[in-house]
Amino acid sequence: MEATTRIEQALEQALADGESPAGPPLLLEAIRYAVFPGGARIRPQLVLAVAQACGDDAPEVTDAALASIELMHCASLVHDDLPCFDSADMRRGKPSVHAAYGERLAVLGGDALIVLAMEVLARGTAKSPERLAPLLLTVGQGVSVPSGIIAGQAWECEPKVDLAEYQRAKTGALFAAATMVGAAAAGHDPAPWRALGEKLGEAFQVADDLRDAVSNPEELGKPVGQDEALDRPNAVRQLGVKGATERLKRLLEEAMGSIPTCPGEAELRVLLMKQAAKFLPKELAQQAA
Amino acid sequence: MEATTRIEQALEQALADGESPAGPPLLLEAIRYAVFPGGARIRPQLVLAVAQACGDDAPEVTDAALASIELMHCASLVHDDLPCFDSADMRRGKPSVHAAYGERLAVLGGDALIVLAMEVLARGTAKSPERLAPLLLTVGQGVSVPSGIIAGQAWECEPKVDLAEYQRAKTGALFAAATMVGAAAAGHDPAPWRALGEKLGEAFQVADDLRDAVSNPEELGKPVGQDEALDRPNAVRQLGVKGATERLKRLLEEAMGSIPTCPGEAELRVLLMKQAAKFLPKELAQQAA
Repeated sequence: MEATTRIEQALEQALADGESPAGPPLLLEAIRYAVFPGGARIRPQLVLAVAQACGDDAPEVTDAALASIELMHCASLVHDDLPCFDSADMRRGKPSVHAAYGERLAVLGGDALIVLAMEVLARGTAKSPERLAPLLLTVGQGVSVPSGIIAGQAWECEPKVDLAEYQRAKTGALFAAATMVGAAAAGHDPAPWRALGEKLGEAFQVADDLRDAVSNPEELGKPVGQDEALDRPNAVRQLGVKGATERLKRLLEEAMGSIPTCPGEAELRVLLMKQAAKFLPKELAQQAA
Repeated sequence: MEATTRIEQALEQALADGESPAGPPLLLEAIRYAVFPGGARIRPQLVLAVAQACGDDAPEVTDAALASIELMHCASLVHDDLPCFDSADMRRGKPSVHAAYGERLAVLGGDALIVLAMEVLARGTAKSPERLAPLLLTVGQGVSVPSGIIAGQAWECEPKVDLAEYQRAKTGALFAAATMVGAAAAGHDPAPWRALGEKLGEAFQVADDLRDAVSNPEELGKPVGQDEALDRPNAVRQLGVKGATERLKRLLEEAMGSIPTCPGEAELRVLLMKQAAKFLPKELAQQAA
């Protein structure tokens, strides 16, 4: 099965488990709207790629793990777009959840996605219950306090920001969780896979900063120049476009160098380089390749 | 150990696991502020009472289960108090989280509490991993879609409300989860314990409606007359004070009648009646006793 088909089916299943005619229809609609159609699905692709490199011996566990990571990501987008944060009216080329369904259903929809992201792990590990706790704790570490993406977002509310911790938590934490749950889903030790996720997460953040600085809003599907406007830390503001591009290339090299020995190591390397190309704004894809 | 001491210690441990000097200090402070000092801790008391009635053979699992339920409850209070919902500036006799820390940290603090509520289950079941999935799925059912407290809150955003479903989900779902995880934490089948939680949850909702109608704000620690002001369904508006008080007494009788056979059945009955008295507004406690 194509990776993209498998990811969409896993997400479909994760949402279907929470749907029922007894539930509040608008909330269920808002949840679905937050998940479909997706963006690049970079994080679940990463979970799947690592799980396959590790043998993917329990595909239903891999499906649960990749759905969990992507649902957490969708939840964070819904909440980060709220008026009290970025107040973003557009996301993935359509009105954001609060713009389409109101602020209350955006808060509740994000909440429900967080819970669904944990429930899917319990359902997916019914036949291999010993894998549930490591998966849950790894996902938790990627989103929770002290250093997950929720903490990353919260650094924007602190009077004194630990910049390295901010950047690591804001994006890197969920990428690290993605590579680690990929390994854990296939019964491998997740710890050696942390560095790959962290490096890719940092690379993605730099690429995102580049896109925010040089893209046009149609290509991006959301407003550009937001970091400058909201005075947020940004690699392009720190290093310039050329410096940020060089940093991105170095991070990708380091990421590739950190891949642990595993059965599908060579294929994983090829796949990740192909996916990395998608990170980049069109203008820079060629020169960074 | 006293029940109240045990509950506070379990909550303390659950928060400590997410705390670190590396985390964003204000977020960690806001999370702690949302949990301590608590309200009546009715839900974790209920988890503990049922677990003890079932033998409490793995106290660390019971502690995790009661902390999970209470953290989910605290998360729901933080989000329900937000300006887009009740816009409540007071909670438990002090400024609500968004009033004290701002809307952004209230959103993120609630999110973090939801994740912590799941993480504590994984940590607490390290020695009995077979109990994790049933606990997680039971807590999930109590908070998630289609019929948990998140769905209950979302019914307030629907143009057409299923009133029975709204009331069951808004309060009953987490009470049902509380009695069920109490049994599951002690290795008992949770299903027979659903009715007790549902009845007690409904009783609590009626008692809350009575308090909202007849209390003064000092006694309640939050504004009164909110249901009338926000045009929400309320047992006193439907049945009057006398009718609602009678309904409350009948619900408590039904709750007591639904207790499954278990080693500590008699003690549980006494304990629940004692706790039920705390539900009631002072003015009504005597006449309903």
